[in-house]
Amino acid sequence: MAAAGTDASGLTSKDYYFDSYAHFGIHEEMLKDEVRTISYRDSIYKNKHMFEGKVVLDVGCGTGILSMFAAKSGAKHVYGIDMSNIIHQARKIVSDNGFADKITLIQGKMEEVQLPVDKVDIIISEWMGYFLLYESMLDTVLVARDKYLVEGGMIFPDKATMYIGAIEDGDYKDEKINYWDNVYGFDYSSIKSLAIKEPLVDTVDGASVMSDACPFKEIDILTVTKEDLTFKVPFEITAARDDYVHAFICWFDIGFTKCHKPIYFSTGPGAKYTHWKQTVFYTPETLTVNKGEKIRGTIDCAPNGRNPRDLDIIIDYSFSGEHGSEQHTCDFKMS
Amino acid sequence: MAAAGTDASGLTSKDYYFDSYAHFGIHEEMLKDEVRTISYRDSIYKNKHMFEGKVVLDVGCGTGILSMFAAKSGAKHVYGIDMSNIIHQARKIVSDNGFADKITLIQGKMEEVQLPVDKVDIIISEWMGYFLLYESMLDTVLVARDKYLVEGGMIFPDKATMYIGAIEDGDYKDEKINYWDNVYGFDYSSIKSLAIKEPLVDTVDGASVMSDACPFKEIDILTVTKEDLTFKVPFEITAARDDYVHAFICWFDIGFTKCHKPIYFSTGPGAKYTHWKQTVFYTPETLTVNKGEKIRGTIDCAPNGRNPRDLDIIIDYSFSGEHGSEQHTCDFKMS
Repeated sequence: MAAAGTDASGLTSKDYYFDSYAHFGIHEEMLKDEVRTISYRDSIYKNKHMFEGKVVLDVGCGTGILSMFAAKSGAKHVYGIDMSNIIHQARKIVSDNGFADKITLIQGKMEEVQLPVDKVDIIISEWMGYFLLYESMLDTVLVARDKYLVEGGMIFPDKATMYIGAIEDGDYKDEKINYWDNVYGFDYSSIKSLAIKEPLVDTVDGASVMSDACPFKEIDILTVTKEDLTFKVPFEITAARDDYVHAFICWFDIGFTKCHKPIYFSTGPGAKYTHWKQTVFYTPETLTVNKGEKIRGTIDCAPNGRNPRDLDIIIDYSFSGEHGSEQHTCDFKMS
Repeated sequence: MAAAGTDASGLTSKDYYFDSYAHFGIHEEMLKDEVRTISYRDSIYKNKHMFEGKVVLDVGCGTGILSMFAAKSGAKHVYGIDMSNIIHQARKIVSDNGFADKITLIQGKMEEVQLPVDKVDIIISEWMGYFLLYESMLDTVLVARDKYLVEGGMIFPDKATMYIGAIEDGDYKDEKINYWDNVYGFDYSSIKSLAIKEPLVDTVDGASVMSDACPFKEIDILTVTKEDLTFKVPFEITAARDDYVHAFICWFDIGFTKCHKPIYFSTGPGAKYTHWKQTVFYTPETLTVNKGEKIRGTIDCAPNGRNPRDLDIIIDYSFSGEHGSEQHTCDFKMS
C-alpha cells in the first residue's frame, strides 16, 4: 500500500498543494540529471562575460544551484524565487558556500513577490516539465520576463522545440495497455480504457523509433506569450523502415542560443537519459507502415478547462499505406 | 520540475489527503507484484474449503482483486471497503466479471462505515507498507477484526515477521549520502544531514548482505494490538564474512499460516523482487567487521507524535571487534 508515494501519475496533479518540492528527493533527481544540470552550468560558466556584473533572476531556484552558478560567474547579484519550503535549505546551502551576500532567496509566487530591484539583466530558470509543458513553470517565467527583464535582457535557456515521432512498441504496449484485458483471469478492461488515454512518461529505446522526427512546436522564451502555449499544429512523419506503429512519442530539445557558442540538449530517445524521459501516446490500432510512407495529423494541446494543471492533448492522425488506412482522433490527458 | 510526482519519499506523507489511490497506476504496481498477488491468490484458491459459503471482509479492497479471488473461491458474500475513489473502478470491474451480486463494495473508513452484517468469517487484506509498518493499514485491519471478525474467524494473512541484517554498501552510500559533500563543486552537506536520517526504500543485492538475519518483531494479526506496534526490541546480528558495514537493512516476511498448507512470502534481499523492496538505514560510521563478530542493539519504532503517519525509528547499536569499537544511537524518520 505504501507504494502510493511512488506513483508519479497518481500524484503529480496535486503535488502543488502539499509542496513535494520541499523534500530534497526531487531536487536530488534533478541535480543528478547531468544532461540538465551540466547544460545549465556550461551555459553560465562558459559565458562569464555575459554574467559579469549583471543582476540575475532565478525563477524556481530550488536548492539554489543555478543561482550559485550565476554568482560564481560574476553576477553582481542573484535573486532566487521559489514558493517551496526547499528555499530554507537553499538559504543554508547558499550561505554554506559563501554566497549569502551575492544571492537573495525569496519565498513566494513570482506573480506575488516584489523584487528589491526594478529590472534584471538575465533570467535563468529550469522550468520544463514532462512533454515540456506538463506542470511546467513556463507561465511563471513569462510573468518574470514581462515584469522584470530589462530591454534586451537574456533568458537562459531561450529556445525549446517539441518533436513527435512514431515507435514500434508492441511488447511494452502489451505490458501497459493490453495487460488489463486479463488480470489474473479477470476482465480489467475498464482500466484499459483509462490507461490508453494517459500518456506514458518513460524511456524509449532509440531503436524502437521507426520514423523521422517532426518538430511541431518552436518556443522562443523571449517572445512567446501564455496564449501561444495553447495550440493546434500539423505534423507529418515518414517511416524510416518497414515496421509497425503502436505509439507516437514526443520529446523536446532545449537551447541556450544567446551564449557565446550556443548550447543545446535533447530529451529525445536517441540522446542520453534525462529525468524527463519521453512521452508515449499509444494509438488505438496498430499501423502497418512501409518505409517512406507518411503519417499526417495535428497535435492539439491546451490546459484542461477545469484543472489548468492538467494538459489536454488531442492527436488526430490519418495514414494511408499499402497495408491499410487508419484515421483516428485520440484524446489524451496528462494529470 | 514535473518530476515532482516521481519522488516517493517527498510525497508519501501527504498522499492520504488527495487520494493517490484513486489513480490506477499504484494499483497496477501492486497487481503486477506477482510475489504479493499470487501469494494472496494461492492462499485463497488453494483453500476453497475455507472460503466456501463464508462471509468475507476485504479491508482496503483497491480494485477488488482479493474480493474476486474470495468470491471465485465460493465465498457466500464479500464486503470490500476502501476509502479511495478507486472503488468506483472496482465496482465496474466487479460487475464486468459477474460478481455484482456476490461482492458489495463500500467506500469509507473502516472506523466509520457500518457493514450490513454483524460478523464476518474471514478478513482478507493487503495492508503492508514499506518497512511493514510505514503507512500500513494494519491499524484499520485491527479495527475491522475487533468489530466484525467472528469468534474463531480467520485473517489472511495472519503472520508478519520483521528482520534486520547488515550490508556492505559503500558505493551506493557514496551515491546517496556522500554525494551531498560536493554537488557540482558546492557544499550541500546540509542536505546530507537530512539524507542520512531518512531510511532508503530500495532493492538491495543479496550479495551485499554480510550478516545473518535477525527477526526482531513477530506480529500475529489475530491477536496483536495497536499498542504492540509501538515497540523497542533488541537485536543481535553476526557477520557471515569479513566485510564492512555501511548500513542496516530491514525487511519482512508474510505468512498465511492457517491455510491447509501454510503459504509464505518474503520481501528480503535474497528473495524475488517485490514493490516493498527493502529498507536501508545508513550508519554514521563504517564498521570493519570480522566473520563471527556480533553487532548488538535495539530497534525502537513508534508513530511520530505530531504526524502519526510518519514513523520514528531509532536504531541503537554497539560493536566491539578486532578492528575497533562503535556505539551509536541513530534517529531515523520515515515520512
